[in-house]
Amino acid sequence: MGNQFGTALRLSIFGQSHADAIGMTLEHFPTGFAVDMDALQTFLQRRAPGQGAHTTSRREPDVPRFLSGMVNGKTCGASICAIIENTNTRSQDYVNLMEMPRPSHADYPARIKYGESYDARGGGQFSGRLTAPLCIAGGLCLQYLQTLGISVGAQIQQIGRIKNPKFDPISPKIPSEFSVPTAEMLEEIALAKAEKDSIGGIIECAVTGLPVGIGEPMFGGLENRLAQILFGIPAVKGVEFGSGFDCASMRGSEHNDPYYVNSEGHIKTKSNHAGGILGGLSTSMPLIFRVAIKPTASIARPQESVSFTGENGILEIHGRHDPCIVPRAVPCVEAAAAIAILDAILEAKQWT
Amino acid sequence: MGNQFGTALRLSIFGQSHADAIGMTLEHFPTGFAVDMDALQTFLQRRAPGQGAHTTSRREPDVPRFLSGMVNGKTCGASICAIIENTNTRSQDYVNLMEMPRPSHADYPARIKYGESYDARGGGQFSGRLTAPLCIAGGLCLQYLQTLGISVGAQIQQIGRIKNPKFDPISPKIPSEFSVPTAEMLEEIALAKAEKDSIGGIIECAVTGLPVGIGEPMFGGLENRLAQILFGIPAVKGVEFGSGFDCASMRGSEHNDPYYVNSEGHIKTKSNHAGGILGGLSTSMPLIFRVAIKPTASIARPQESVSFTGENGILEIHGRHDPCIVPRAVPCVEAAAAIAILDAILEAKQWT
Amino acid sequence: MGNQFGTALRLSIFGQSHADAIGMTLEHFPTGFAVDMDALQTFLQRRAPGQGAHTTSRREPDVPRFLSGMVNGKTCGASICAIIENTNTRSQDYVNLMEMPRPSHADYPARIKYGESYDARGGGQFSGRLTAPLCIAGGLCLQYLQTLGISVGAQIQQIGRIKNPKFDPISPKIPSEFSVPTAEMLEEIALAKAEKDSIGGIIECAVTGLPVGIGEPMFGGLENRLAQILFGIPAVKGVEFGSGFDCASMRGSEHNDPYYVNSEGHIKTKSNHAGGILGGLSTSMPLIFRVAIKPTASIARPQESVSFTGENGILEIHGRHDPCIVPRAVPCVEAAAAIAILDAILEAKQWT
Amino acid sequence: MGNQFGTALRLSIFGQSHADAIGMTLEHFPTGFAVDMDALQTFLQRRAPGQGAHTTSRREPDVPRFLSGMVNGKTCGASICAIIENTNTRSQDYVNLMEMPRPSHADYPARIKYGESYDARGGGQFSGRLTAPLCIAGGLCLQYLQTLGISVGAQIQQIGRIKNPKFDPISPKIPSEFSVPTAEMLEEIALAKAEKDSIGGIIECAVTGLPVGIGEPMFGGLENRLAQILFGIPAVKGVEFGSGFDCASMRGSEHNDPYYVNSEGHIKTKSNHAGGILGGLSTSMPLIFRVAIKPTASIARPQESVSFTGENGILEIHGRHDPCIVPRAVPCVEAAAAIAILDAILEAKQWT
Repeated sequence: MGNQFGTALRLSIFGQSHADAIGMTLEHFPTGFAVDMDALQTFLQRRAPGQGAHTTSRREPDVPRFLSGMVNGKTCGASICAIIENTNTRSQDYVNLMEMPRPSHADYPARIKYGESYDARGGGQFSGRLTAPLCIAGGLCLQYLQTLGISVGAQIQQIGRIKNPKFDPISPKIPSEFSVPTAEMLEEIALAKAEKDSIGGIIECAVTGLPVGIGEPMFGGLENRLAQILFGIPAVKGVEFGSGFDCASMRGSEHNDPYYVNSEGHIKTKSNHAGGILGGLSTSMPLIFRVAIKPTASIARPQESVSFTGENGILEIHGRHDPCIVPRAVPCVEAAAAIAILDAILEAKQWT
Repeated sequence: MGNQFGTALRLSIFGQSHADAIGMTLEHFPTGFAVDMDALQTFLQRRAPGQGAHTTSRREPDVPRFLSGMVNGKTCGASICAIIENTNTRSQDYVNLMEMPRPSHADYPARIKYGESYDARGGGQFSGRLTAPLCIAGGLCLQYLQTLGISVGAQIQQIGRIKNPKFDPISPKIPSEFSVPTAEMLEEIALAKAEKDSIGGIIECAVTGLPVGIGEPMFGGLENRLAQILFGIPAVKGVEFGSGFDCASMRGSEHNDPYYVNSEGHIKTKSNHAGGILGGLSTSMPLIFRVAIKPTASIARPQESVSFTGENGILEIHGRHDPCIVPRAVPCVEAAAAIAILDAILEAKQWT
Repeated sequence: MGNQFGTALRLSIFGQSHADAIGMTLEHFPTGFAVDMDALQTFLQRRAPGQGAHTTSRREPDVPRFLSGMVNGKTCGASICAIIENTNTRSQDYVNLMEMPRPSHADYPARIKYGESYDARGGGQFSGRLTAPLCIAGGLCLQYLQTLGISVGAQIQQIGRIKNPKFDPISPKIPSEFSVPTAEMLEEIALAKAEKDSIGGIIECAVTGLPVGIGEPMFGGLENRLAQILFGIPAVKGVEFGSGFDCASMRGSEHNDPYYVNSEGHIKTKSNHAGGILGGLSTSMPLIFRVAIKPTASIARPQESVSFTGENGILEIHGRHDPCIVPRAVPCVEAAAAIAILDAILEAKQWT
Repeated sequence: MGNQFGTALRLSIFGQSHADAIGMTLEHFPTGFAVDMDALQTFLQRRAPGQGAHTTSRREPDVPRFLSGMVNGKTCGASICAIIENTNTRSQDYVNLMEMPRPSHADYPARIKYGESYDARGGGQFSGRLTAPLCIAGGLCLQYLQTLGISVGAQIQQIGRIKNPKFDPISPKIPSEFSVPTAEMLEEIALAKAEKDSIGGIIECAVTGLPVGIGEPMFGGLENRLAQILFGIPAVKGVEFGSGFDCASMRGSEHNDPYYVNSEGHIKTKSNHAGGILGGLSTSMPLIFRVAIKPTASIARPQESVSFTGENGILEIHGRHDPCIVPRAVPCVEAAAAIAILDAILEAKQWT
């Protein structure tokens, strides 16, 4: 566990925010696949910092360098390793963090776990920057899934108090106009920033084109796999599928999705409260899930904290931080979903 | 994956609803531990069917037989195997299910995945009955965690439209008066049953006494592990930690949990929106999470379905089913949490 | 690790020599396969004790009871669990072993590892009896491999000083007349028994019919997988493939296997020093390996040992033991090979 | 599996012979450990090419660059990633290999497995060059084991026809004068080279200082783990422990290792045919094993092969190759052993 994910496909993430580099290895990715490097870069750019007033001013191109696993732009069956060099680190911003943990960051438990040698700079291995290699792996998986007719698209359902009124969770469109914040949401972010504060949100993701029966029972179901990888994105506080927490107040007669045969002779359901998953297995209906993203922990206001030597104090965080990471988390959610789905698809081949 | 869970501790679940037996193997459970069999049976009884008007009338004692791993009531270091014989199956209730899948059950995708030989009786390996071996494993883990000063307790926050007005998520008590439904909740269940319908609910669970730093980064965090096992309980549609989905509309200044040094000199946080986990690692604050339970899929009303040969039809489910499984899911949630927590604790020993 | 083996196929073994039962769970075995129970029993009988003067007089039918994973004699896609009840244990034979470890058994390190609660009776979880569930799993895999045109056959190359003069490692026949001891070997065993002693031997195994390219690089190669499972058979002290240790004194020009195109247009090699594996991958030539089996550790002569409290002493082992376990190890080697091969075949499907 | 090894410690190897780089990630290595980079480089140099007449003339410094997991020369608890850039590749030497597989290399099955995009240059991911990252990981583990009082040392027992007459397998010395070839062995290598041929050999390795009870039963024993990783070194054809294949012709009364209490009150055995392992668990006697190394597959003589299109032909290998890789394999064996041992030690902590 830890930095590794996957059963058939094996992803391993490495790096710290201020290490020489961050990166990933991806084992068992299909061979002979021509990667569209431009499309991958475009995808990574959606996560990259420095794109607008709502993101951190840390600017890094986030261009991956592929060290292995490809020949002439095609995967060759060997483990794919890609790295991103960390070139724009300002470790001096973090000097005081070595003394005093930032509230709602991993600093405190990580320091206790790993001891004095723990790399606290920029959040170390717990930094949101580690989602960049996640997006490299996910970007490759997304491209491969497309060749199977499978699409993955995430969209912003809510930022702070602003919910998208036009948002229709039943029939998600991929790609979606909602994968970026609305004007009203951007205002909400700007407001938080002006008040030296931050806000969270909710992202919904849909996977369409899945065949029936992908996934394994019990702990290997699609929900289990997706939740396991999604909680690997820092700031995710909740994951729900289909009807999600709303199911609690529904009746079975309302929640059950009736089967019918559609005009093409395929078995479908009239509603999709299941979110496309029953018993952990795909039903061929759109797979729908939502993740809750907490407000950015780094805020510019002074905060109460303690020194590691046990004295109360006041902490001011300097660094460069997003007032809202929801927009940048959208491609991370897509990446995580794509990895989990491709893993399940490859594992399902053993049943054929 | 699939029927296996755990990194340091290895749980493997087996059985189908109408197989000769269901059971579990548990490898790497601590050696020399004297199991309190009476306490274990009491725990299993909380999950067992046939306890009240709100549960199925299928009555089985659910007394596990330990085949291995124990000598004279103590664990001996060998894999623990325990089974429960299936004695009270009424397979004839399920004859028509071989022809027509039940809405919101795993029948349809499972039949496609496993083919004609799939064991559909009673939901096969996807049956909620498989939570009985989960509770055997969890019951053992709960007992062991107690010796470490760690308590796990789940309580009912909501059933149908009824929320517990006295429920205080910030200061959970273990054990809790709320681990069983209130009178009002029982009425809500009875109402659904009278209408040949079913309802869902929300369960909250707290783990107290955890040391700091349990868990691994990224995909091995406590949220990841807990979510992976919790979605293994049939009917779970969502999992959230601490503030959960409410975090979306909170400001960082409000959501961040300020550190302080308590009167005993320990570092604590004034609030606990993190739910006791930062960066996947325990903070020593109570670990809090909630799961959403969908309304029981089996309802007595006729439902629209299709035959596997592709014709629309009407399905009537006979069998014996709970109008609300939330009360019986409470110990399942505790069991799942205990397994995931003990696994993480044993894995953390390698850092010592 | 420990009692679990496999990547795509997941085997878990449980039980102790004198526990209520021993058994295995096998997850991800192909679905819809009609098991030939008679053939399985015949296979298990080859391993079972009490078959001749050279084996222990402990007589147990070793008839597995399948608890799950099958419906009407066909696998249904659920985890297969099978157990064998331990009915003929004589724990009193082992009373003194609780005090004094038997030389060349696991008693001493196991007692230190697991503490006072360790189940030492009959060797506990380290008993050769645990190869019975290995043979249940292996017997299922052997049957399934046959449907793919893949045969696995082991034969006795040597027992004590007696080597089989007619043995031809280059062209193994399956099934083989050499899977049972020759008359001369039986005499060698009888001689050792008469002298209250024991002897070892060498078993060779061949797997034919493998397609090209099964296996994974580095640590996932066929040698790695086979060696990992074969050393799980108690008493195995060495594993070698193809030319094995003889390769040390060979020249490359002699050892290299020249390629040629056979009359059917298939690429083959003129010799097979590789033992059918290159880079961990199958070449389509017969996969050949050998295992060394040490002489049975339990002998009737008095032996020097020590008490766990640290005093030198003399130990006499009573119990019932084989003077040579090589004949009974033959089906265990076939079982282990079949499990590892089917696991690799199922994993290889993800590349298709 | 595949490029990953380990249960508590997780090693992942990546790269191809002619990729941009080769490297490894190592997760769960103990935190706060000050790596002696000079000692590591000295260790890697023992494996590096270009050191004498008996090795390939491909000269690469093999200086690892650590991308993550360390701060100020100390491990910080994050995944360690180290890479070696491939700077001295001569891919033109391998042009004809794309057409015709080299005998006794992985070329043929790898091409079938991975398809036309397979990276055949220099053996791709199956190249012996991948043992360089294995040695980085192993070098770190060796240093850490030393702090626990555990030593790992491998020595050359045989090269071609030359066995070391002074070699005493019962009492291995660490470090050993035999970790490099004797003058006579160097002559044997020179002779093979002069004849455009190659030779193999046998390496013995000893691990001393292990506490009692390290390892897991059945498939998780020390033999299983060591064999799994050792067969990951290309050219290894056999692995044996203690008495190894010689056990076949020994009597139990001779092979059993009698226990006694030594002058310090510790329980030891008078002989060590077990090779320091019983039931997969360490006994505290020296852990002894041997590996057989086949003669280098690349020889300068013309060899029979076939084209991938199915025509017989003659292949001449140009490139730069060792006539005997045994000397360079010595540190690889130590590295592999150190990784497997540290993994088992970390896993054993969960029993404490």
